[in-house]
Amino acid sequence: MPTQLICPEAGLWTRRGQGIVGLPLSARPLEHSVSEPAPLPEPPYHVVVFTSLRTSDADGYGEQSARMLKLAAEQPGFLGVDSARAADGLGITVSYWRDEASIVAWRKQADHRIARADGRARWYESFTVHVGKVERAYGFTRPE
Amino acid sequence: MPTQLICPEAGLWTRRGQGIVGLPLSARPLEHSVSEPAPLPEPPYHVVVFTSLRTSDADGYGEQSARMLKLAAEQPGFLGVDSARAADGLGITVSYWRDEASIVAWRKQADHRIARADGRARWYESFTVHVGKVERAYGFTRPE
Repeated sequence: MPTQLICPEAGLWTRRGQGIVGLPLSARPLEHSVSEPAPLPEPPYHVVVFTSLRTSDADGYGEQSARMLKLAAEQPGFLGVDSARAADGLGITVSYWRDEASIVAWRKQADHRIARADGRARWYESFTVHVGKVERAYGFTRPE
Repeated sequence: MPTQLICPEAGLWTRRGQGIVGLPLSARPLEHSVSEPAPLPEPPYHVVVFTSLRTSDADGYGEQSARMLKLAAEQPGFLGVDSARAADGLGITVSYWRDEASIVAWRKQADHRIARADGRARWYESFTVHVGKVERAYGFTRPE
């Protein structure tokens, strides 16, 4: 299920390139799933790419996943997230962060640690995590 | 449709973290779709995150997408790709590259330029592109 959260610091969003989507905060409450790419923060910022293959155990996964996305969005330095999982179980979640310190803090966050342990124990066959720094970004929105 | 290609330079793949999946090259021909996260290259390497929302025009998209994934995998510096599109049309493709120059070269590749123009004209409502450098990576594979 694609889920997209938005930046709690509205001022960080900018329109770049050919003009990227980005509804005002008031139109995009944190728990509302919207199907469009996350707005582009101003580079540089940091990125975590989480690619995973799910097990067949679905019990509790959806709730935990939604809870973690909501919790992530409340962390200092959180800038946004895009997430998509295809029918065959491979999923990609890309989260954007203001700096490296905010990624480290999120990694240490207590509930998130427990959720990760649950994930390894029950929900994921395998996953990879790539952590990096975004130097440039652009986007496209179809003209109305 | 999740699609995963593999690195034409086998020596670049390494096992990191808790041991990541990575079948030998001989078992993973380039046109074979496999549903597992791409093997982890040795950092540092570069990443392109392409997040897109599709239009309802499906004509020719699947073929073009498959052709571009195959072509990307033939480019110098290509290290791997993960791709997933969910039922509601939001998709994420993350490709990994040895250096910035290989990303620039792929961007200039003639067939790829034409495909991108087609994408803007017909297949994408909107997209974002984030280009960055991966400094660390790790993975998990469920014990047998």
